[in-house]
Amino acid sequence: MRMYDIIAKKRDGFELTKEEIDFVVHGYTKGDIPDYQVSSLLMAIYFQGMTEKERSELTLAMVESGEIIDLSPIHGIKVDKHSTGGVGDTTTLILAPLVASCGVPVAKMSGRGLGHTGGTIDKLESIPGFHVELTEEEFIRQVNERKVAVIGQTGNLTPADKKLYSLRDVTATVNSIPLIASSIMSKKIAAGADAIVLDVKCGSGAFMKSAEEAKTLAKAMVSIGNRVGRKTIALITDMSQPLGKAVGNALEVKEAIETLRGNGPKDLTELCLTLGSYMVVLAEKAASPEEARAMLEENIANGKAFETFLSFVEAQGGDKSVCENVERLPEAKKKIELTAKKSGFITGIAADEIGISAMMLGAGRTTKDSTIDLSAGIVLHKKAGDEIKEGEPLLTIHTNKLEVESVIEKLYDSIHIENTKADIPPLIYEVITEG
Amino acid sequence: MRMYDIIAKKRDGFELTKEEIDFVVHGYTKGDIPDYQVSSLLMAIYFQGMTEKERSELTLAMVESGEIIDLSPIHGIKVDKHSTGGVGDTTTLILAPLVASCGVPVAKMSGRGLGHTGGTIDKLESIPGFHVELTEEEFIRQVNERKVAVIGQTGNLTPADKKLYSLRDVTATVNSIPLIASSIMSKKIAAGADAIVLDVKCGSGAFMKSAEEAKTLAKAMVSIGNRVGRKTIALITDMSQPLGKAVGNALEVKEAIETLRGNGPKDLTELCLTLGSYMVVLAEKAASPEEARAMLEENIANGKAFETFLSFVEAQGGDKSVCENVERLPEAKKKIELTAKKSGFITGIAADEIGISAMMLGAGRTTKDSTIDLSAGIVLHKKAGDEIKEGEPLLTIHTNKLEVESVIEKLYDSIHIENTKADIPPLIYEVITEG
Repeated sequence: MRMYDIIAKKRDGFELTKEEIDFVVHGYTKGDIPDYQVSSLLMAIYFQGMTEKERSELTLAMVESGEIIDLSPIHGIKVDKHSTGGVGDTTTLILAPLVASCGVPVAKMSGRGLGHTGGTIDKLESIPGFHVELTEEEFIRQVNERKVAVIGQTGNLTPADKKLYSLRDVTATVNSIPLIASSIMSKKIAAGADAIVLDVKCGSGAFMKSAEEAKTLAKAMVSIGNRVGRKTIALITDMSQPLGKAVGNALEVKEAIETLRGNGPKDLTELCLTLGSYMVVLAEKAASPEEARAMLEENIANGKAFETFLSFVEAQGGDKSVCENVERLPEAKKKIELTAKKSGFITGIAADEIGISAMMLGAGRTTKDSTIDLSAGIVLHKKAGDEIKEGEPLLTIHTNKLEVESVIEKLYDSIHIENTKADIPPLIYEVITEG
Repeated sequence: MRMYDIIAKKRDGFELTKEEIDFVVHGYTKGDIPDYQVSSLLMAIYFQGMTEKERSELTLAMVESGEIIDLSPIHGIKVDKHSTGGVGDTTTLILAPLVASCGVPVAKMSGRGLGHTGGTIDKLESIPGFHVELTEEEFIRQVNERKVAVIGQTGNLTPADKKLYSLRDVTATVNSIPLIASSIMSKKIAAGADAIVLDVKCGSGAFMKSAEEAKTLAKAMVSIGNRVGRKTIALITDMSQPLGKAVGNALEVKEAIETLRGNGPKDLTELCLTLGSYMVVLAEKAASPEEARAMLEENIANGKAFETFLSFVEAQGGDKSVCENVERLPEAKKKIELTAKKSGFITGIAADEIGISAMMLGAGRTTKDSTIDLSAGIVLHKKAGDEIKEGEPLLTIHTNKLEVESVIEKLYDSIHIENTKADIPPLIYEVITEG
């Protein structure tokens, strides 16, 4: 088998066989195939696409390129949730204990990440004492006993994906549906998921700008999941404005706790109930999304969801009393309230700009080695569609930075107030169950 | 300027600027841009193509990447001829002295090459004493005095093209019209041509299999030439069967001499007169191709063309008496005549198979270091369209190899004899004067 022939075959629009895909992925991971041939193939894939069969084979080849987490000692069906990323996306913090409270085992491997805010682990570390340094044994025991645990990325998962992603990143081949879909799915499968619920976001704050693009990606991932024996469901959701009201690490923990106690923002609560319903169904703890939703709503109302959260925090060394008294979470020295400069209706809140503003306030990492200010961020007081009067609070900045004039200007620019009410995008566009 | 952005721009179908193309070509030649980014760009070009402006800029950037031969001390307009390559293509040996005899200066830089037979220089070395080791000064003086000289490739011409070609060769991006066209044109321009006549071949023995593909390539090259100030004309010509009757080094020299003396095969003579006419016109030694053709025919008839050849051979150390007594050219020990196994009409002679057979007989190089048997080759006695009777001579094998059974079988397989006459392709499809 020659790499040249594989490139030419894909260039000419033919379907690659499993053997050819394995040859490329394993050869590249081992260093036998040079970057310049792989980048040429990636660009050919960019133009010619990949069939559903090719996408599944690529995903499995990447899974097999490294370690695979064995979650079989955990009882029940392990359902993972993956979000394609957005601004103010606090859902993992809420969903993990929420579905766990319904008996769904949540064995979450999470990251820190480079973004507008930290990742799930950074956020959880706002709670004094909380840590993710569990042994595999402790991790599994905790999930079996308390139904939920979070650890950091361990092991050498999907090295082929890491190497391919690095190459795509410098050769303008990131934005290819088959490559994105197989990359995401390979990581979820290698992390041991039996079933997967995907939150594919669209809008200014997401990688996919339109609902149509998001749907194409969602279908691609659902198809891969179902072909390789992992039941997969995707939701297409809005990320034209931030999700919920808080953007920041401790601020989002506080919002997650409020949501688990039934006092969360409407959109965030709704999204968590919907994503959670499908997780419960895939875990076979309910027969329908409606039944599952009723269970989730009940566990918020009766306090079980929040109790599960407290039990989880406690098990991982966190001070659970802080969760009961959220004013003890890290707090910024400066809180600056921005008020509306005119009356009208909020027609849009540019998610990407709010995200960048939060990062400028200290909430996110710009490089791997940056430190995060866990207390920094933004709390919105109004969302798109709301009416506001001149002088009413629009949002509050939380920061320890001395100079924030440019952020204030950016924030005013990113919130649009018009005289007439405009249509705002739906929170949930569609549920995708077939590829 | 970032290579990433240039790849993405081409990927998305936009036209690259001169600055961007220069950045890529110079950066890659210097080693500042890695192979894997360039191969990704090349594949994007494969799919998105290049505009006429981009092709010209790429050509000039490659010309400027290395040395440029200065032929200005040679009086007159230097017209170069380039063939895209075929089997039994003896035209350079004939054209150089033929047009020189009309006062066109021919300063030919030629190669040895890997092919079915050697290159022009190998062929000329069949003449005892002939050599191409001229200093630049000798070369220029000879062209000024005798109107024709041939030297080997000198200097570091178009290093960017060499590096890009090597990369294309292993990344399945050779077969791209803009890349082929700019590669050929950059070499001609760097070699000092003022004007260029292109012989773009099509058929089984050529790189371009169809006349349509050949026309696309021809138009691309003519467009580049004319845009960068080198008058360029292309002929689309047939290479479904070998050109002329001889395939081999000394055998082609003999055929060239016969043609220069007015006794050459009809097709070879016709092609030389046509290509030569356009060379004479571009050199401004005649006002029209018809006038030029009359001059060429006259110089064959009156012996001037052959005299110019003898003078050229003598100037480069060759024994011109051998040219007057061609039986003194290198001769193979074995001559095997193949006769027709049945009567009928020859409907086709597969050029590619004849070429491979000649190579198997020893006429060509398989690797850079192979030695060539100058005497080996094939002489056809019939061409496509001819009638033949069972037992009549079809061709003669010239070789020093002991075992040629498999070649004989191949040769019989490559010559098709049918009961009824078939249409044969025209020798010259079209003359392309505009891109």
